[in-house]
Amino acid sequence: MTEKVQLGWLDGMAFEAEVNGHKIVVDAVESVGGRNLGPRPKPLLLASLAGCTAMDVISILEKMRVKVVAFHIEVVAEQTEEHPKVYSQIKILYKFKGKDLPMDKLQKAVDLSQERYCGVSAMLRKASELSFEIIVEE
Amino acid sequence: MTEKVQLGWLDGMAFEAEVNGHKIVVDAVESVGGRNLGPRPKPLLLASLAGCTAMDVISILEKMRVKVVAFHIEVVAEQTEEHPKVYSQIKILYKFKGKDLPMDKLQKAVDLSQERYCGVSAMLRKASELSFEIIVEE
Repeated sequence: MTEKVQLGWLDGMAFEAEVNGHKIVVDAVESVGGRNLGPRPKPLLLASLAGCTAMDVISILEKMRVKVVAFHIEVVAEQTEEHPKVYSQIKILYKFKGKDLPMDKLQKAVDLSQERYCGVSAMLRKASELSFEIIVEE
Repeated sequence: MTEKVQLGWLDGMAFEAEVNGHKIVVDAVESVGGRNLGPRPKPLLLASLAGCTAMDVISILEKMRVKVVAFHIEVVAEQTEEHPKVYSQIKILYKFKGKDLPMDKLQKAVDLSQERYCGVSAMLRKASELSFEIIVEE
């Protein structure tokens, strides 16, 4: 399969990407000549990672008939100081809310995403140390 | 430096990410239970890559006093068939418009981004074969 993404320069440090027909503006902060019209490009990588594994986890839990009331992911990444600045460590916190959620099934869903399905995790793992944590709130 | 990105489940396959204070919705296509309210998470990785190198190139060309009238990037990625589905090859097309643009400086700006500054390229290069092309239109 071939995937195509377009990105056009607006002005200053602002660019508009077109991804699957949807527009996303990225921009730099004011201190480096941007106007903060959108997010910085690099953390968009973390949103890609979070979205990829989140979709896996929700669809796996649905197949397992596990009812989740709320689900959040928080990604915390440590960036190196030297150019090229990369994320040396990335931690993914999976936060579930629900009644009597079966921890073993939540763990299984996260493991399946991380070990088998999530292509973004598979790619970033080659460059960063990925770690995970599951948090359950009643 | 620590970077944090949040992602919350809306419903179905739709999730809202918060990146540098900006909201981005990702969603699946209808055929897998989504409503296409936003892009798929994986190609967002390509938008991150395009934005990262685009900002480098524009700011390097400004320092070189090269006046570009228009600038687009097209990213074309080949995805593997087996899980986890990853981008095995990624081609970045840099398309410049301007009068008498100096090819050597355009090439230098792209090289500096790819070899020194773009952290997203540095990370993805560990997982994918990256290639580049510069196209100039008068």
